[in-house]
Amino acid sequence: MGKSPLQMLMMAMVMSAPASAMAQTASLVPTPPEIIARAPAGAWRAIAPENLVVMELGNGKRIVIELAPDFAPVHVANIRTLIRGGWFDRNAIIRVQDNYVVQWGGADPKRSIPKGVVDRPPPEYERPLAGLKISPSKARDVYASTTGFADGWPMASDGRAAWLTHCYAMVGVGRDLPPDTGNGAELYTVIGHAPRHLDRNIALVGRIVDGMDVLSALPRGTGEIGFYTDAEQNVPIARTRLAADWPGRDQPHYQVMRTDTAPFAEYADARANRRDDFFIRPAGGADVCNVPVPTRKAP
Amino acid sequence: MGKSPLQMLMMAMVMSAPASAMAQTASLVPTPPEIIARAPAGAWRAIAPENLVVMELGNGKRIVIELAPDFAPVHVANIRTLIRGGWFDRNAIIRVQDNYVVQWGGADPKRSIPKGVVDRPPPEYERPLAGLKISPSKARDVYASTTGFADGWPMASDGRAAWLTHCYAMVGVGRDLPPDTGNGAELYTVIGHAPRHLDRNIALVGRIVDGMDVLSALPRGTGEIGFYTDAEQNVPIARTRLAADWPGRDQPHYQVMRTDTAPFAEYADARANRRDDFFIRPAGGADVCNVPVPTRKAP
Repeated sequence: MGKSPLQMLMMAMVMSAPASAMAQTASLVPTPPEIIARAPAGAWRAIAPENLVVMELGNGKRIVIELAPDFAPVHVANIRTLIRGGWFDRNAIIRVQDNYVVQWGGADPKRSIPKGVVDRPPPEYERPLAGLKISPSKARDVYASTTGFADGWPMASDGRAAWLTHCYAMVGVGRDLPPDTGNGAELYTVIGHAPRHLDRNIALVGRIVDGMDVLSALPRGTGEIGFYTDAEQNVPIARTRLAADWPGRDQPHYQVMRTDTAPFAEYADARANRRDDFFIRPAGGADVCNVPVPTRKAP
Repeated sequence: MGKSPLQMLMMAMVMSAPASAMAQTASLVPTPPEIIARAPAGAWRAIAPENLVVMELGNGKRIVIELAPDFAPVHVANIRTLIRGGWFDRNAIIRVQDNYVVQWGGADPKRSIPKGVVDRPPPEYERPLAGLKISPSKARDVYASTTGFADGWPMASDGRAAWLTHCYAMVGVGRDLPPDTGNGAELYTVIGHAPRHLDRNIALVGRIVDGMDVLSALPRGTGEIGFYTDAEQNVPIARTRLAADWPGRDQPHYQVMRTDTAPFAEYADARANRRDDFFIRPAGGADVCNVPVPTRKAP
């Protein structure tokens, strides 16, 4: 019973959540990708140029990061200063640990930190809940009393404080032992199952909005906890720039789905209750990291 | 304040959960890797040769899989028949979708399924809870009333039925729309955040116990939902064999940590409540997929 290529594709498509061609299946209810695709322009917010980072690798590939100043303002200010001071230029990715993190920025320990970087930022591991407009998830959570989304970010709360959650593609600041909080010179992103035990132990400062597949497919390091054992293995970073500093009209523009909208609520519900033809038994819920917030290049 | 390479290593080490050299840090309490490292021989069970699959890629790399006949006996019997019938030999990995799955076995739709394969296995998506000895987790779960571990497998239950959970590295059977359950000729493994919404919708048949980093680092496919768009991109599988059929004394031997032991309970508790020096605020819990069951080559 060899399947035809079309059958194979169908089979694989219906297995998929983030696919974009689900309309070709016969589902009577919209799938999460369909909901994203038909969301109106007003369901998206632009990423401010001051919060948009483009990291160009030596191989010409681009990683695009959104910074989260509302959650870690001093760390984010540091990262902007590091970028503008050239810290990440001719730097490298030095660690890839399977099902955990990719880490960059520490290729040359002799390099000087640019002037203006706060050496020991405050522990921006959480912030007051007040001032955030949260769209709560109904799903139970292991790590917090509530989870949800605020201004396009996945987050958790204990009813008093709120914090970003360590979901796939979130970006954090490597640090030494407490009370050090890291100055932003070494960053990592999550490439595996959400290590939520790191929540409130490290400053999260943003997320990858494009190029995640470049980072996640890097060869795993064979040294301790995924360090490359030889500088030859390091993945060179050519240059890192803020979109705000981009010359001319080539400035990149990205968008994040607004999480306080009806389309996002419909998307999140569809992620939690898959009703398309493939599914026999909808889960009835989805943990906060199993509802990835859609991002895209501005159309 | 450039850090020395040692400081950088320290910093990275303490950030890590699955590291093996944590003893070099100054923690007063054992870390999860330390607990694994000192677990006595009795804390491990051997993987039966009939359940151990070695898949050799064309590039010489090896993927080792443990099958789970207690959860999906007909599917597992099919997979053994497919292996012994040469189905996976000179076959290929054809799909790599970021933060989702790697899929293999369907490179040539014209190839005939070996004789003896049950074309439409029963829906082995769950099994009776009775007969399983479960070590329950105290963590709340979004997708099931209880989660825990049985005989080295991550699982969930509703008090009546029990099922394997779609954690990182678990292996499942691709299928078409219901009532098809897939015959085992196309398999996938999870390479991202646990897609638990697939639980009880697909037959899980095992997990990768070695070589996971080979699969997870493959280039992502650029076709729909991660399919390679050109057969040239497929990753060739040279040969797949059961350890039981291995000639001579080179037969591979692997072990899984027993999940009904004090060392596993200590490990799971340490994953949920990180007390080593790096952590400021232990999580107080860990979802079932954030407690990866340790596996290793037999010492």
